[in-house]
Amino acid sequence: MSLSVGVIGGGQLARMMIPAAIELGIEIQVLGESDEASARAAVSMIGDATDAAAVLEFAAGVDVVTFDHEHVPQPILRELIARGVQVRPGPDALLYAQDKLLMRERLGALGLPVPDWARVSDAGELAAFLADHDGRAVVKTPRGGYDGKGVRVVTSPDEVSDWLADGRALLAEELVEFRRELAQLVARRPSGEIAAWPLVETVQRGGVCAEVFAPAPRAAGALSDMASDIAYRVAEGLGVTGVLAVELFETVDGRLLVNELAMRPHNSGHWTIDGSTTSQFEQHLRAVLDLPLGATGIRDPWSVMVNILGGPASGTLADRYPRVLANQPTAKIHNYGKDPRPGRKVGHVTVGGDDLDEVVYQARAAAAAFD
Amino acid sequence: MSLSVGVIGGGQLARMMIPAAIELGIEIQVLGESDEASARAAVSMIGDATDAAAVLEFAAGVDVVTFDHEHVPQPILRELIARGVQVRPGPDALLYAQDKLLMRERLGALGLPVPDWARVSDAGELAAFLADHDGRAVVKTPRGGYDGKGVRVVTSPDEVSDWLADGRALLAEELVEFRRELAQLVARRPSGEIAAWPLVETVQRGGVCAEVFAPAPRAAGALSDMASDIAYRVAEGLGVTGVLAVELFETVDGRLLVNELAMRPHNSGHWTIDGSTTSQFEQHLRAVLDLPLGATGIRDPWSVMVNILGGPASGTLADRYPRVLANQPTAKIHNYGKDPRPGRKVGHVTVGGDDLDEVVYQARAAAAAFD
Repeated sequence: MSLSVGVIGGGQLARMMIPAAIELGIEIQVLGESDEASARAAVSMIGDATDAAAVLEFAAGVDVVTFDHEHVPQPILRELIARGVQVRPGPDALLYAQDKLLMRERLGALGLPVPDWARVSDAGELAAFLADHDGRAVVKTPRGGYDGKGVRVVTSPDEVSDWLADGRALLAEELVEFRRELAQLVARRPSGEIAAWPLVETVQRGGVCAEVFAPAPRAAGALSDMASDIAYRVAEGLGVTGVLAVELFETVDGRLLVNELAMRPHNSGHWTIDGSTTSQFEQHLRAVLDLPLGATGIRDPWSVMVNILGGPASGTLADRYPRVLANQPTAKIHNYGKDPRPGRKVGHVTVGGDDLDEVVYQARAAAAAFD
Repeated sequence: MSLSVGVIGGGQLARMMIPAAIELGIEIQVLGESDEASARAAVSMIGDATDAAAVLEFAAGVDVVTFDHEHVPQPILRELIARGVQVRPGPDALLYAQDKLLMRERLGALGLPVPDWARVSDAGELAAFLADHDGRAVVKTPRGGYDGKGVRVVTSPDEVSDWLADGRALLAEELVEFRRELAQLVARRPSGEIAAWPLVETVQRGGVCAEVFAPAPRAAGALSDMASDIAYRVAEGLGVTGVLAVELFETVDGRLLVNELAMRPHNSGHWTIDGSTTSQFEQHLRAVLDLPLGATGIRDPWSVMVNILGGPASGTLADRYPRVLANQPTAKIHNYGKDPRPGRKVGHVTVGGDDLDEVVYQARAAAAAFD
């Protein structure tokens, strides 16, 4: 049995698949943006994910193609399928992670709970939606957004006049009054097996994931059941293969609404490298190779992940190691090998333990020491 | 701060350093025996560890040189030092892992407990040693042995006449009546910091490590204190940097005797990848880079490692994944990417949990399913 996986995109998600691949003896190759890509240790070819010739050439050398991101155009994905390449997740599923309008329509059709939303093509339609929603809305470009990009909270159509000028439809959503944000991570094999990790709480700052608490505090029982039920229905309804992250709002009145989907390992699951029996990166590889999934239990009572955003103003993350490693001997440091830049995700820290306050304190202290 | 480590030798120990290096953002390069080496994902140069030109060229590209094995000749190590290369462990320490006669002499001088031993250069000296030890002895070639090679239990000098014919001195040791074998793993930085993992019990079959139980059952308290005291004294007395494994006999009368030393990650520490907060591979990299050491606590009450010896008679380990992964979802499989061959260490399995019997059962079942 040959186990060879090709990952399109050389970011930190591809990078963190490499250790899992090495341990399991999976041959991993990455189509990276440059030889400085975060996943450079496994970059076998340099090319752009939107360059059909590059993607097709890359895919010819592997058993299964999967992704670091959702930016491979549908025609290229369909050409891969036509050539007999195993693409996981497949284009029919990935479509809903690529286009937020299609995602909203499809989740609605599946009867899944989503915020009120509308397709708006001009200022008049957006003004009507605002009028129906207390004068406020979240407007999103259906494609290409991430980490808060392509998302604006608006009170007037003027605030997205640049987007409307493009002539493309936008997604308008109610501004959900939420108590907190949660994320439910699952993995699904082509043969149908699904495994779910514990529900987690995520803290966003400026539209970027800053912290993750696993499991989500005060969420055992009904709330967790509801979240995993939603994620199972999304995974099955959309035919997802590999890891699926379902970002959720917990509303002030105790409902869960689906916010975003990602069909790849996700920031809300980085804690699993150190905190779960099976990491999301190992599980993703197992799932896309249609191998049996691993146990998804949490290893400590609490696991807290804090992103290292930006990094030091000068120098590298490693310059801080003498101090950070001495002060936080239980912190697991993950360095993405990227140049520090304000706001950029350049690494993360995970700490596990029995006492949530203590674990949060240590993880924050370790991450902050990289500033 | 640049973190670049060169590993001489491309076996599974070098291979298992790669995931730790990637997570910490350490640039790792391997001088491998071939492009099929177990550590091929990081092989940057192909060459032999006994080829001075190759080793010197390789070392010129890294900050620190360390090892997958102990087979680099002393003159090459000393030439590296002369050229200003950081070599960790250094040649003065490594000498005692390379030559068992020197090791015995030095440990004796340090007052550490060792089996009765003698240097024997001819049949007469060995006969005299046998006469003093109930007619039985363990005879070892001082250099080049591993995994039971270079070790014979004898009752007559005739049984090592081939070795004696070489004209080199041999090490004769009493055949220790031991209750069990233990191993104490520590890591030491050049600046002096030492960290010890819990004492473990090792089970050898045919001179090869088969299983490791962490922590060693019924060893808390005095026995563990004695073992870590011995390992600290060896590490400091010999000036070891990086991981040091001290293999110990627990005698039927409750003493600990030092059997063998290894100055690199060691089979008795493979459980730490999944079972300890800091794996021996991460710790080795931290130690040789003189970075603060990580926490060495055990994460589950019990962690059991079982080697995959030989592998399937035909095919690859991966052929067994559908069955093994389905039956043992909590088992952590480590595949060294080596061709199966009778008796060869081709991988290992680690299982952690609360109940020792259950953990042992699952780890053995997972490893056995690769036969």
